[in-house]
Amino acid sequence: MSTEIYFDNAATTCPSPDVIDFYARVARDCYGNPSSRHARGTAARALLSEARTKLFAALGTKEGRLVFTAGGTEANNLALLGRAHAKERFARGGRILTTAGEHSSVALPLRALAREGFEVVEIPTKGGVIDMDALRAALSPRVVLVSVMAVNNETGAVYPTAEIGRLLHRVCPDGVLHVDATQAFMKIPFTPKTLGADMVTVSSHKIEGPKGVGALWVSDALIKNKGLSPILLGGGQEEGLRSGTENVPGACAFAEASRLAKESFEERTAQMRAVREYLVRAIAAHPVLSTAVTPNLPDAAAPHILSLTVSGFKSETVLNDLSGRGIYVSSGSACASNARNLSEALLAFGKTEAETDATIRLSFSHHNTTAEADAFLAALAEIVQTRAKARK
Amino acid sequence: MSTEIYFDNAATTCPSPDVIDFYARVARDCYGNPSSRHARGTAARALLSEARTKLFAALGTKEGRLVFTAGGTEANNLALLGRAHAKERFARGGRILTTAGEHSSVALPLRALAREGFEVVEIPTKGGVIDMDALRAALSPRVVLVSVMAVNNETGAVYPTAEIGRLLHRVCPDGVLHVDATQAFMKIPFTPKTLGADMVTVSSHKIEGPKGVGALWVSDALIKNKGLSPILLGGGQEEGLRSGTENVPGACAFAEASRLAKESFEERTAQMRAVREYLVRAIAAHPVLSTAVTPNLPDAAAPHILSLTVSGFKSETVLNDLSGRGIYVSSGSACASNARNLSEALLAFGKTEAETDATIRLSFSHHNTTAEADAFLAALAEIVQTRAKARK
Repeated sequence: MSTEIYFDNAATTCPSPDVIDFYARVARDCYGNPSSRHARGTAARALLSEARTKLFAALGTKEGRLVFTAGGTEANNLALLGRAHAKERFARGGRILTTAGEHSSVALPLRALAREGFEVVEIPTKGGVIDMDALRAALSPRVVLVSVMAVNNETGAVYPTAEIGRLLHRVCPDGVLHVDATQAFMKIPFTPKTLGADMVTVSSHKIEGPKGVGALWVSDALIKNKGLSPILLGGGQEEGLRSGTENVPGACAFAEASRLAKESFEERTAQMRAVREYLVRAIAAHPVLSTAVTPNLPDAAAPHILSLTVSGFKSETVLNDLSGRGIYVSSGSACASNARNLSEALLAFGKTEAETDATIRLSFSHHNTTAEADAFLAALAEIVQTRAKARK
Repeated sequence: MSTEIYFDNAATTCPSPDVIDFYARVARDCYGNPSSRHARGTAARALLSEARTKLFAALGTKEGRLVFTAGGTEANNLALLGRAHAKERFARGGRILTTAGEHSSVALPLRALAREGFEVVEIPTKGGVIDMDALRAALSPRVVLVSVMAVNNETGAVYPTAEIGRLLHRVCPDGVLHVDATQAFMKIPFTPKTLGADMVTVSSHKIEGPKGVGALWVSDALIKNKGLSPILLGGGQEEGLRSGTENVPGACAFAEASRLAKESFEERTAQMRAVREYLVRAIAAHPVLSTAVTPNLPDAAAPHILSLTVSGFKSETVLNDLSGRGIYVSSGSACASNARNLSEALLAFGKTEAETDATIRLSFSHHNTTAEADAFLAALAEIVQTRAKARK
């Protein structure tokens, strides 16, 4: 097969050529350090400020503050570690709630905080649904932080963060809601307000922007209350919340990618949804795949992620066979580098260990087509049949 | 003046067009996530590995490990916080040595560690010379970390890190030497071994690479001894020392910039040195500037930094007047974003507060020329004379 099919857009996207051109133009023509007090510094500051305005617009808000980071992982670490360490009293009995199956860049900082003495409570997410009774039961005035992803990166499940925010803010005076929106940004419509969030993580390379850039949106109230401390210390850039010479071309290109995605939000998400729904229907009607493949469909699902359990086949094997045919999908989350362990998100979804081990993830961009979906189905059917025959 | 003169290369450099082309090519053609297990992931991993090999070559070593970061600030934070937190026992009585006048991305993490209970000792650096007696006196088996910059970013002073490393490793079994080589990389010849370092920070945008990329070199012994813990937690990239999807094009472009700089190391540094020495001589012989301007010359000096005290003039004023003429220099370090306070490095050098407030920094790239130096001298003389007259 000469034409390649990239169905791994939740791992990373092909950056828009316009965005990379934009990056290169800024890098070449406006290389000043924004902290420099001469004209070159002023020009760089102006560009950075323009990027911030664009990203605010893409987020649908003028409130709060945007802290540019090196990516979603740093933004999540900043949100969690920065919140937990903002006040010394938080460490004495502070409770943090999260869901079972968060991305490792949320799960691991929380594990570190648990070792420091924070009480970290994981709320079940069976079938892609947050157990709201468990969440309610865990809320108490001791809660200083809740971290919930807007869209699960492995199942595409959309979580009701707004409702969580309402409950949290009613019961917990120190309660702050962090929403990891890495997989939600430019996939489902939201603003920080509609998410009910005090902090929102977004990442550039998931929306056709360059790698190595992300941002944490922080509410005005949290800033005013000094409720977030930095994790990278130094020159005091980003109003003290993230030191280090600003990645001006990166921030500008990220913001431009968000502007382009926002502009075509309806068309782009409709195309992803069309491919996803086409696949679900086609699998159900397929002579081979209807029995071999189970789509894991959350009730509320993002348009770009489709989790498929290929019963009896190790996801690794299927992934390799597909890759050999130029079709690129993932097993679990690509972000868990070299991880050999089973997906927590899929186990939390309710899959057995064997099913989890047999689950692949397809994730779409607006460039994908139903013709590609057909080619994928043909390849998958062939792989399933060939391997099934070989076993006999 | 239509031609602009950029004498602020220690703040940031104009990236090489070839390097930005390289960045754009990688970003467009090889966008896979290195953690992905399909062919696109493999291709990205291969490029990242190539970048690492190039950067190792530029550092003149095959040993140790290179951890790509978002820049010098993150690399410094990783080295210091990661070292201090690597073993729980370090917190009980651990001592850390550093110099007076380190970059804020070293000074501030150390201040945070002091608040945690570490004993942080600042060694004087009067005249750009580390007080080795004070250093010797501060060494004890309790020392877990020494952080010394290879080249001071404000004065250009070169510090004898190799000697410090020898003393340290003789006396302190847990003693690890971190060298912030941000201003030294591709300016003075070194390898981690000749620096005597266990960890070395380098930054891309100071050597004509893109912003938002840096690296921490870590010795094999330190890795083997589990002597460094990560500060960004998540997917476990960079062998667990720095989570987050790798900035593949950024790392590749940084490595390419280091390759180009290494290739022309002699020519480039000779050109910087020529401009610097030309200025020192020309100032001494200048009818106006010989009395108004004092170059702050450390005995051992890097080729690209020249600190000038313009007696009786606030550096801010001189900087603005020069900027108005298209000549870009800095007052203190550009990295101290919006800092209103006086340069610690200059005070530590032995300048009075008034002198510190009157000091500008010129920093050169290989693109600068003695003709530009002449234009700078003419402009500075004019500024000094005009302002002096206006006062009368």
